[in-house]
Amino acid sequence: MRMVDLIHKKRVGDALTEQEISFIITEYTAGNVPDYQMSAFLMATFLNGMTDEETSFLTLAMAGSGEMIDLSAIAGVKVDKHSTGGVGDKVSLIVGPVVASLGIPVAKMSGRGLGHTGGTLDKLESIPGFQIELSKEAFINAVNTNKIAIVGQSGNLAPADKKMYALRDVTATVDSIPLIASSIMSKKIASGAEAIVLDVKIGSGAFMKTVEDARVLARTMVDIGTRLNRKTIAMITDMDQPLGREIGNANEIRESIEVLRGVGDKDLTEVAISVAAYMAMLGQVYSTFEEAQEAVRDIITKGKALDTLKRFIASQGGDERVVDQQELLPTAAYHMEVNATHAGFINEIQAENIGFAAMLLGAGRAKKEDHIDYAVGLTLNKKIGDAVEVGDSICTIHANRVDVAEVEAMIRDAYQITDTQPAPKKLIYDVIV
Amino acid sequence: MRMVDLIHKKRVGDALTEQEISFIITEYTAGNVPDYQMSAFLMATFLNGMTDEETSFLTLAMAGSGEMIDLSAIAGVKVDKHSTGGVGDKVSLIVGPVVASLGIPVAKMSGRGLGHTGGTLDKLESIPGFQIELSKEAFINAVNTNKIAIVGQSGNLAPADKKMYALRDVTATVDSIPLIASSIMSKKIASGAEAIVLDVKIGSGAFMKTVEDARVLARTMVDIGTRLNRKTIAMITDMDQPLGREIGNANEIRESIEVLRGVGDKDLTEVAISVAAYMAMLGQVYSTFEEAQEAVRDIITKGKALDTLKRFIASQGGDERVVDQQELLPTAAYHMEVNATHAGFINEIQAENIGFAAMLLGAGRAKKEDHIDYAVGLTLNKKIGDAVEVGDSICTIHANRVDVAEVEAMIRDAYQITDTQPAPKKLIYDVIV
Repeated sequence: MRMVDLIHKKRVGDALTEQEISFIITEYTAGNVPDYQMSAFLMATFLNGMTDEETSFLTLAMAGSGEMIDLSAIAGVKVDKHSTGGVGDKVSLIVGPVVASLGIPVAKMSGRGLGHTGGTLDKLESIPGFQIELSKEAFINAVNTNKIAIVGQSGNLAPADKKMYALRDVTATVDSIPLIASSIMSKKIASGAEAIVLDVKIGSGAFMKTVEDARVLARTMVDIGTRLNRKTIAMITDMDQPLGREIGNANEIRESIEVLRGVGDKDLTEVAISVAAYMAMLGQVYSTFEEAQEAVRDIITKGKALDTLKRFIASQGGDERVVDQQELLPTAAYHMEVNATHAGFINEIQAENIGFAAMLLGAGRAKKEDHIDYAVGLTLNKKIGDAVEVGDSICTIHANRVDVAEVEAMIRDAYQITDTQPAPKKLIYDVIV
Repeated sequence: MRMVDLIHKKRVGDALTEQEISFIITEYTAGNVPDYQMSAFLMATFLNGMTDEETSFLTLAMAGSGEMIDLSAIAGVKVDKHSTGGVGDKVSLIVGPVVASLGIPVAKMSGRGLGHTGGTLDKLESIPGFQIELSKEAFINAVNTNKIAIVGQSGNLAPADKKMYALRDVTATVDSIPLIASSIMSKKIASGAEAIVLDVKIGSGAFMKTVEDARVLARTMVDIGTRLNRKTIAMITDMDQPLGREIGNANEIRESIEVLRGVGDKDLTEVAISVAAYMAMLGQVYSTFEEAQEAVRDIITKGKALDTLKRFIASQGGDERVVDQQELLPTAAYHMEVNATHAGFINEIQAENIGFAAMLLGAGRAKKEDHIDYAVGLTLNKKIGDAVEVGDSICTIHANRVDVAEVEAMIRDAYQITDTQPAPKKLIYDVIV
C-alpha cells in the first residue's frame, strides 16, 4: 500500500477501506507517512468528505494508535460525557458526583484548557491538594470505592489524533465534521468509555455556529458510537452566552457546589440535570428520561451528590472542606464591578470574548505553557433577557491586579444592551439518539 | 500574511490575489512555508481549481522564483516551443534548424528524459562531441551567429516549480490543469520566451487522455500566455502511437536528419512542419499559416535546414559529419526483428509501453541518475493502419545485449493486430490560439 495512492483515492472521492485507513493512521503515527502527505490527505478529506463507515474506521484507527485504557476491573457500564467546549461550562464537575451517587461508575479522563475555554483538570486543581495524576491501579480503586475519579489523560492516548490535530491547525483543515467527530470519539473510546453523552455547543462561544451544523456533527458522532458498539446520545445546547454565571477555575468550583446544593444558576442546573439523566439512562439504571431526571433531582435535593463530591475530592488528596467553606478556595485580591452605562435589556453576551477576558486575567492559557491563576475570573451578574438600570453591575471582575482596563473593555464589548427585551432563548435545542 | 489563512481562502473556493500567490511562492521557495502547508494548498487548488487570473499570477510567481534569462541581446522575436511529452517526439530537433533557417532566433533550453519519454538534451548528446553546457555569453553569441543554440536548463530556472513538482508527485496532485499549465509556462517564461508554440499530446502515450482534457489544458496555457503578454499557440496532436518510427537517442537524430532531408516519416514531417510554421508566424516572419508552411517546406526542399543543422552541431562542438555519414552516430551491436505471428492490420501501438521497452534497453532513465546508452532503441517498421503478413517484422530492436526477451514481450504487448483495417486517425486534432 502506498500513501500517494490512498491520497489519490480520497481525492477522486472514493471511500477508503478499513485496512487503508488503518494503514494511514498507523504509518503516520509511526512517522513513516510524512506530514506533507497527511496534510494533502486531510485537505482531500475536508473537501470530499467521508462516509459514515470511513469515519468510524478512522475513529477506531485513531483510538488504537496508542494506549487503550482497560476499565474492565470496574463494575457497571462506564459512561463518559464530552462537551465540544464553551465558556463557563462546568457541567462535568456537577454530573460526575451526581451520576456516581446513582451508582454509575465515573472513570473520567479530562483535559486542560486552552484559549477561551477552560479545562476540567485546571478547575479541579484549584481545590487545595487535589491530585489529577493517579496510577492506573489507584484510578480504578478510586472508582470502585467512590464510583468516581477524574484524572489527566494518558500522554499516549490517541497519539494519532494529537499529531493530526496539530497539523490540521496549520493547514486550515480543522472544521471538518468527519475529522472533528472522529477526533472526539477516538479519545472517548481509547479512554475506555462504553457509553457516551455528548454535549454539542452552538452559538457565539462555540465551534458550531448553527443548529444545522451541530446536528450534522451530533448525528455523525452518534453514528460512530453506534457502529463501534458504544451507546451514544448527543444533546445540542446553547453557547450564545456563557453557561452559568461564573468563569474562572475556583469560581466554577464554587458555582458547581451551588448547583449540587440545589441553589445554582437555573440554566446551568437544567443542562447538568439533562446530561446526568442521559448518563443514567446509558448506565442502564433508568429506562426513561423522566425517571432518570426525577432520580437526579432527588439525589441533589437529598444532598447525596454533595456528599459524593466531598468523598471524591478527599480521595484525590483535595481539601473536601471547600464544599462547606468556600473561602478555602483561592480568592482574588480585587473585585471590580463593570456597571451598565445605559438602561435596557441584555440582548447578547459574546461568550468567546468573555472567555478571552477571563484568560487575560490569568484564568486561562494563551499558550500551552502559560501559568494559570486559579483565583481570578468573572461573575456575570446579568444574563440575556435581564433588565438593567444605569449603574447596575453587569459583571464582577475578580483580579489579582488593579489595572483591568483592557479586560473591562472586552466585557463591555461582549455585552449588548437593547431597549426591548429579547425573546427567551432555547437552552437545549435538540437531542440526537 | 499567514499561509494558513491563504490555504483557508483557497479551501473555501475564493480567488487569491497576485500578492497572496506571490507570498506563497516566494516563502515556499525560501523554505519559510513548510511542505505540509504547501501540500494542503496544492490539494485545495486541485479540488477547487483556480481562475485564469490566479493561474497567470501563479505562473509569473514561479517564473520569478529563480533566474529570469535575459535574451534581449538577441535580435528578433524569441520563439520557443514545448511538447507535453511523448514517445518518439523529436520535433524540437527538426523545427530548431528549420525556423533558424527562416531567420527566427532559436535560443532553446531543454531538459533530459525520465521514464518512458526521451529528452532533447540526451538525443543531442548522442552526437559525438556535442556540448549542451554553454556559458550565457557563448549561448547568446551562438544564437546571434547561427540563429540557433540548444542548451541545458539553468539549475536555478523556476526553482519553485521544481520543488512543487516533487511535492505534487507524492501527494497525488500532479494532474491538475492550473498546476500543469503554470508549471510548463513558468519555465518557458523564465527561460526568456517571447512567444510560445505548445504541442499538447493526447492518447495512450500522453498525460492527457482525451481531446477535451487537452483542449482545457491548451486553452489554459494560451490564456496564461496572453495575460502575460507572450503570444501563444497550442496544437493538440496525436500520441496514441509513437511519433515517427525511431525511438532511442541516436536513432532519433537519424530520423530527424531524414525529415530535414525531405525523406522522413510522413506523420512526423507533418507535425514538425506545422509546429515550425506556427513558430514562424509567432516570429512575425509570416502572417498566414499557409505562407509560413510553404516557406518551411521550401527551406527543407532547398537543403537549407540541413545546412543550418550542420552549423548548429559544429558550433556546439559536435561532429557535423554525422549529418551525411550517419554511421558516425553510436550504433548498437545487435539488431533483432520482432515478427508478426498472425496476419491483419496494426490497430494499436501503446506508446507508453514502447517507451518503457526502449528504456529497458538503456535508451532512457528509470531514475534520474541512470546512465543512458545512446546507441540502443527501436525502429517501428509497422504503424497503425499498416497491413502485416505472418513473419513480417513489425519492429527492430537495436540492442547492446543479446537477451531482449522482456523487451520483445513488451513490444508484442504494445502492438495490437486486428482483422479489419482501422479507420485513419487524426494527427492534428485542434489548434488553439
